Amino acid sequence: MYSTQGLHRAAQQQPDAIAVRFAGRARSYKEFGARVARLAGALQSLGMAPGDRVAMLSLNSDLYLEYQFGVWWGGGVVNPCNSRWSAAEIIFSLHDSASSLLIVDDAFTAMAAQILQEVSSIGHVIYAGQGDTPPGMLDYEALVRAATPVDDRCRRGDDLAGVFYTGGTTGFPKGVMLSHGNLCASALAGMAEGLAGPGRVYLHAAPMFHLADMAFSMMHALSGNTHAFVPGFASEAVLASITRDRVTDVLLVPTMIQMLVDHPAMHAGPDLGSLKRIYYGASPISEALLDRAMAALPGVEFVQAYGMTELSPIATVNHAWHHTIEGRKAGKLRSAGRATVGTEVRIVDGDGVEVARGEVGEVVVRGANVMLGYWNNPAQTAAAVRNGWMHTGDGAYMDAEGYIFIVDRIKDMIISGAENIFSAEVENAIAGHAGVAACAVIGIPHAVWGETVHAVIVAKPGAAPAADDIIAHCKALIAGYKCPRSIAFVDQLPLSGAGKILKNKLREPFWSDQQRGVG
Amino acid sequence: MYSTQGLHRAAQQQPDAIAVRFAGRARSYKEFGARVARLAGALQSLGMAPGDRVAMLSLNSDLYLEYQFGVWWGGGVVNPCNSRWSAAEIIFSLHDSASSLLIVDDAFTAMAAQILQEVSSIGHVIYAGQGDTPPGMLDYEALVRAATPVDDRCRRGDDLAGVFYTGGTTGFPKGVMLSHGNLCASALAGMAEGLAGPGRVYLHAAPMFHLADMAFSMMHALSGNTHAFVPGFASEAVLASITRDRVTDVLLVPTMIQMLVDHPAMHAGPDLGSLKRIYYGASPISEALLDRAMAALPGVEFVQAYGMTELSPIATVNHAWHHTIEGRKAGKLRSAGRATVGTEVRIVDGDGVEVARGEVGEVVVRGANVMLGYWNNPAQTAAAVRNGWMHTGDGAYMDAEGYIFIVDRIKDMIISGAENIFSAEVENAIAGHAGVAACAVIGIPHAVWGETVHAVIVAKPGAAPAADDIIAHCKALIAGYKCPRSIAFVDQLPLSGAGKILKNKLREPFWSDQQRGVG
Repeated sequence: MYSTQGLHRAAQQQPDAIAVRFAGRARSYKEFGARVARLAGALQSLGMAPGDRVAMLSLNSDLYLEYQFGVWWGGGVVNPCNSRWSAAEIIFSLHDSASSLLIVDDAFTAMAAQILQEVSSIGHVIYAGQGDTPPGMLDYEALVRAATPVDDRCRRGDDLAGVFYTGGTTGFPKGVMLSHGNLCASALAGMAEGLAGPGRVYLHAAPMFHLADMAFSMMHALSGNTHAFVPGFASEAVLASITRDRVTDVLLVPTMIQMLVDHPAMHAGPDLGSLKRIYYGASPISEALLDRAMAALPGVEFVQAYGMTELSPIATVNHAWHHTIEGRKAGKLRSAGRATVGTEVRIVDGDGVEVARGEVGEVVVRGANVMLGYWNNPAQTAAAVRNGWMHTGDGAYMDAEGYIFIVDRIKDMIISGAENIFSAEVENAIAGHAGVAACAVIGIPHAVWGETVHAVIVAKPGAAPAADDIIAHCKALIAGYKCPRSIAFVDQLPLSGAGKILKNKLREPFWSDQQRGVG
Repeated sequence: MYSTQGLHRAAQQQPDAIAVRFAGRARSYKEFGARVARLAGALQSLGMAPGDRVAMLSLNSDLYLEYQFGVWWGGGVVNPCNSRWSAAEIIFSLHDSASSLLIVDDAFTAMAAQILQEVSSIGHVIYAGQGDTPPGMLDYEALVRAATPVDDRCRRGDDLAGVFYTGGTTGFPKGVMLSHGNLCASALAGMAEGLAGPGRVYLHAAPMFHLADMAFSMMHALSGNTHAFVPGFASEAVLASITRDRVTDVLLVPTMIQMLVDHPAMHAGPDLGSLKRIYYGASPISEALLDRAMAALPGVEFVQAYGMTELSPIATVNHAWHHTIEGRKAGKLRSAGRATVGTEVRIVDGDGVEVARGEVGEVVVRGANVMLGYWNNPAQTAAAVRNGWMHTGDGAYMDAEGYIFIVDRIKDMIISGAENIFSAEVENAIAGHAGVAACAVIGIPHAVWGETVHAVIVAKPGAAPAADDIIAHCKALIAGYKCPRSIAFVDQLPLSGAGKILKNKLREPFWSDQQRGVG
């Protein structure tokens, strides 16, 4: 099996079914497949050899899907840029992957000029926007029009399919190498779990550079389904697409679900009757939000998937049943689900030994979905994948029925006096204090306890909460040993380009000459 | 992924769920898994090394499932004997595969004595019956009881999982080598097609030595479902199991469906309310039988799967929709379905070039489910698998939506005056004559037409139909060029052990010094 197999299957079984619907245009699988074969020809004529990296820096669109399948069809390797990153991060990833071609849309033509100057490997920038082609760039449509379609290279198995840059909160981004075998295994297992099937319309509302969306791309292409797109998440656009494109399935994160169901446009009672399933990830959904979402979207099923780029990306699924009023009684709503049919999931201690049910350890995953490794980074690969087990860095426990409950990033866990303390839990307590705008909790070295809990807090404008007062507030909410022993007030927390708090930066001054036990 | 992964998944997620239910006993996945690990230990202590073949010659039972998973767990290779074959055929297959251990049940203890004498590779015969262990054999339960459980060898990918003997109508049986990767790919694709899912009870009514049943074994183990068993197909036993074991899914062939729904016990209105799905294969179901079956089993879905042992075994699926009264209007009921998400299917001419839709050619299949090859038979492997495409030997055409319609075995197709004639069609016409008990149609050489249609007929007792009369009967039903040009009357047709007509034997006298164009 190979990643473009869905296009061949659709061409054989339903050539006239609509493959993509975007910006007023609709293309059948026959038309879409023909464009993919021409794009592959165009990229080859620009020098793309088997294994060459071709980057795309763009908002979501039907062309993004063409790019993905076109590069594979021609034998290349995709390198979808995180469009939320800074220019410096994107340049790092393009340089690191030595990408030779770059496709950009209107949102990134300005950045493309800078990239072209700084990344010497990039031979051509291809403009896939709506306006006139900027000087120095090639026109996407003209290339596709002029190209000769080529045969599918049918790359498969361990052939490299993509380099996906991830991280950034802990130093430089890492390029996750996924093979066609990885992507196909993930798609087949996802379908076996019922995450996709025939006769659906999938809306690409999550960013297409993320593996989460790409996994659904694969599944819905294999199912011969219609793909709809919004350039980026915006409630109005998503609601409009659901109504217009008769969307049945969409992937969101809980924040997006919240923005959607709380949006004023929902009061007008838009026609969302086609929508049947919302997949979500990144974090569990709160019961309160789920209630509002179920009231706003009656008949819609909610399904959580957990994983990471290195897992192509799905490891566990928490199915719709546990989201229903009756199903919630089983107490699994906060769980990230359990191993799919294609993966093995365990919770292990620092030595890789499985811990007892209910005990917190690190989530490790084995299966055909585990990445080939990090690009040009065998040391990090060896640290992450040991005996075939991908070490996720997530702390979690598993219950008697195999459901895992994520408690923290392992490196954010604090071990104080042999007790595990989850920074997320402490942060939640502190955040409830009326004078706190933002906070981050870390472990700092202590001669007796190993680590103690330290909080870094940004006060609300005009507020000046006292450290003692915050500690007292916490003691009313969580166990004493979890409460901060020390507090620092700062004007702002150090953030990554993606807006994640850089805890490493906070830890640095305390740990510079120490060795942490975990992480 | 590996073939025993379902047992590990069930042990993690639902150790107390019932794995097997047979002969008044029920075992949870925890118990079943423990027995599998002990059986693996017992087999190893009897000398089973990784890759060694272990045969089973038995009717269906829970022990058959233990055998399958136990051999894999211990690193061995299964060789499930076709229990319908003659002793000579079984001995050939055991000798050819050099199996070192043989497990038998009560039905085959007598044959086992003969086997032990004639097959020198067999070191031990293990008796898995209900009575006293015959002299010279080892007791299955005693072995399992005394054994030390061993770790799963987790064989996977191209590791050999089984040698499955097939054929026999065209000379000696061939051992189809399937890898763990083959079996897992087939199971995942089947699940992605919806052929299995959680919360079901599967009845092993088809023989467990067949790949069709083994594919469902895998899918239902991966789903953590309950397996029920009948020793062999018998309508009363199947009906009783459905009621008693709350069976939801069963795999049958159309003949079994007919025997079931036409059985007198159906008049008593047995409680079959648990049954939700009947999978069938080997041939399409007739509309008349389907109507009767739907009336007898309201609410049951019918799904056809097509494939062969060499394809682990599924290539195409014709889903439930086309079996409903409304769905039949699409005219696909006679189709064997279309390519699953995991396989590629094409119809090709003698040069391997795809033919136009609607044209008859040979069905070829590519995918991770294609066998490793024939055991000890590289020549036949090379003839069957070319450029990754398994040549099925089945003649079929494909319609505009990718559905294939099997018309005949390619080697049974007659080409007369450049017209394709399907022997099955002619046989159906002849069989409708009141004086005919059985018949077989073959092509015989002809200087002008290449081949002409020749019928070999067994008359009904007391009847003496005239050749001219039969030809006239055919002319009223099928095109003139398809009607027999010559007819031979015989007392009986040559049959294989499995009851298939040996057309090669019929052709022999005509073709001994000729070269056939097809086959």
